[in-house]
Amino acid sequence: MANAYFDHNSTSALKPQVLEAMMPYMTKQHGNPASQHSFGRHAHEAIEQARHQVAKAVGAQASQVVFTASGTEANNFAITGIASNLKQTQILTSSIEHPCVTNPAKAMQWRGWEAKSIQVDDSGNVDLRDLQTLLEAPTDLVSVMMANNETGAIQNIGRVVELATRKKALVHTDAVQALGKINVNFNDLNVHAMTVSSHKIGGPLGAGALVLNKRVDIQPLLYGGGQERGLRSGTENIAAIVGFGTACELAKQGLKDFSSHTLMLRQLLEIGLQRTDAIIFGQHANRLPNTSFFAFKNIDGETLVTALDKLGFAVASGSACSSASSEPSHVLLAMGVDPDLARGAIRVSFSADNTKKQVEKFLQAIKQAVKDLRQLTSVAA
Amino acid sequence: MANAYFDHNSTSALKPQVLEAMMPYMTKQHGNPASQHSFGRHAHEAIEQARHQVAKAVGAQASQVVFTASGTEANNFAITGIASNLKQTQILTSSIEHPCVTNPAKAMQWRGWEAKSIQVDDSGNVDLRDLQTLLEAPTDLVSVMMANNETGAIQNIGRVVELATRKKALVHTDAVQALGKINVNFNDLNVHAMTVSSHKIGGPLGAGALVLNKRVDIQPLLYGGGQERGLRSGTENIAAIVGFGTACELAKQGLKDFSSHTLMLRQLLEIGLQRTDAIIFGQHANRLPNTSFFAFKNIDGETLVTALDKLGFAVASGSACSSASSEPSHVLLAMGVDPDLARGAIRVSFSADNTKKQVEKFLQAIKQAVKDLRQLTSVAA
Repeated sequence: MANAYFDHNSTSALKPQVLEAMMPYMTKQHGNPASQHSFGRHAHEAIEQARHQVAKAVGAQASQVVFTASGTEANNFAITGIASNLKQTQILTSSIEHPCVTNPAKAMQWRGWEAKSIQVDDSGNVDLRDLQTLLEAPTDLVSVMMANNETGAIQNIGRVVELATRKKALVHTDAVQALGKINVNFNDLNVHAMTVSSHKIGGPLGAGALVLNKRVDIQPLLYGGGQERGLRSGTENIAAIVGFGTACELAKQGLKDFSSHTLMLRQLLEIGLQRTDAIIFGQHANRLPNTSFFAFKNIDGETLVTALDKLGFAVASGSACSSASSEPSHVLLAMGVDPDLARGAIRVSFSADNTKKQVEKFLQAIKQAVKDLRQLTSVAA
Repeated sequence: MANAYFDHNSTSALKPQVLEAMMPYMTKQHGNPASQHSFGRHAHEAIEQARHQVAKAVGAQASQVVFTASGTEANNFAITGIASNLKQTQILTSSIEHPCVTNPAKAMQWRGWEAKSIQVDDSGNVDLRDLQTLLEAPTDLVSVMMANNETGAIQNIGRVVELATRKKALVHTDAVQALGKINVNFNDLNVHAMTVSSHKIGGPLGAGALVLNKRVDIQPLLYGGGQERGLRSGTENIAAIVGFGTACELAKQGLKDFSSHTLMLRQLLEIGLQRTDAIIFGQHANRLPNTSFFAFKNIDGETLVTALDKLGFAVASGSACSSASSEPSHVLLAMGVDPDLARGAIRVSFSADNTKKQVEKFLQAIKQAVKDLRQLTSVAA
């Protein structure tokens, strides 16, 4: 059996139809979309078509989509760009945000803002009472993610918007992990800005977007040639943007199947895990269908990931982006999980291409790996 | 005859070998380079190999290469990131820089810095005496491009470094247009930071780099997962970075051929133009071999570009990135060119794939187009 890849919240392979849509822009001379000649005009048209595809998939107007090179860039742009044009009050971000939301907020502290963290409960849901308390101080910007990358916990953005707008704060949501897994509708969410990304939904790396209510005043993060109505300079990555557009269209079409198929796989996985002594984090939260985050007591997560890799299964320890560090997941710590247990966490995230057979084999493999690791430890002790 | 593309300073098609190197990362599941599993490790190795290729091509150490998503991002990162960690003195940029250098410098004015412009002479060379005068005021950062995108004028970076370092200012150079066209050697240039980009040298869009002397203290522009030693967060665009690495290697290997072939084409073009009443800008400057920038009196550049496009030739009016605006080129205005003549400017930029035959046909086409446009004007008048 080829290696089974269960790390789709981290990055996902290109869908064949996406690659097909991109290929003309990688095999033939294309123009700079800013250029006047026919090469340039064709490139410009391709980008505007992709803008419509992305907008349609996320319930927005095409004119609200600002393309960036990544979700990380869109999140940095949102926090830094929106805050820069507001009074220097406080920025609230949840304690389970991705570091590309919290770290730009912290960086704004050197420029006079205050960055504060909204607590979550033990299921990984943002504590709305804590938000309410924090909002008693003047606040101009609140950022809460739509779904968490590690636990998959889906946040109550509707209530966040209600509470924040009552205090005239703007709301940004990072919908990178939600897109393609649950319904994402910018208009219905009523947020002021929303981040989406391509490579988590079978699109290419190199494209993301900030969906922006046009009444929001924002400063560019990238200055230059004035692309994207002056909001984001730099020659547009045509192939990546075209691929992103196609991936959005496919994600929207495939949403129901993705959801039912990956939920079935996750249930199979978690029924199996419940026959072991695994602890599943946020199990009773409203979660993304494809995501399961769990740990075995006294087993180190990184060691288990390595053991599973040798057995042919790719899973993540903590969040993928910070897998280089061996600190326990900040998401689990925020949920009040014991740091020792948190260090054991591994994440499985499925795509529509994963199979029941893979999950069944994985359950066998993980039981064996945990048994072997425990034996090693007991011998060592 | 298929349309002839003479706009390579704007963007260039992927070289077939570059696409070949990228394909494995677009057709198979790849990992997030931060991930521990084998998919992630392979992605990480691919990126480190590309880092060595880029470093070797630009005379730097691999550890000095910080990957970004574009030249625009690298220039913004350099100006904003370096200035942020310095005293709030002045930033000097030449008056012919790309807006992705001058605009971030201007944006720093809101944060307490002063941004001043270094004059150029009528050939488009930075006026070193003006630089010397400006350096009499406390200055911490100077940015001068290695070669200009419009005229192709190659700047005397050695002297800029000499003058600036004497005053303890750091020097950044935008080498985006120089790479692949003339020799670029970070170590020999002795600058503190240098920007390069992939899509101008037959690499893909979506990759650039800031080459950075490690003693330079820089603040990230993108915060998040801590990639690129914490200097530039965001999941690395593996395919694009691999393509960039290959394109750098090919550019280095092909430098002599590129230079002699495109210079031959340009000479052919300019000999032909000199038989007309065309004015060639910066003709006697030390220029990139592939670039020619010229105008015909009383002919609007954009109108001529459109006429040439219909005849099968893709050229630029002013700089490609700002072709959307109809302001005359800021480069020509800085050189003291009359705004009316500057509005007539068109740029031809060759690649190694362009041919003598294309240039001969282009000369016929441009003579015809200019004649037709003048006839139209005289009829209208």
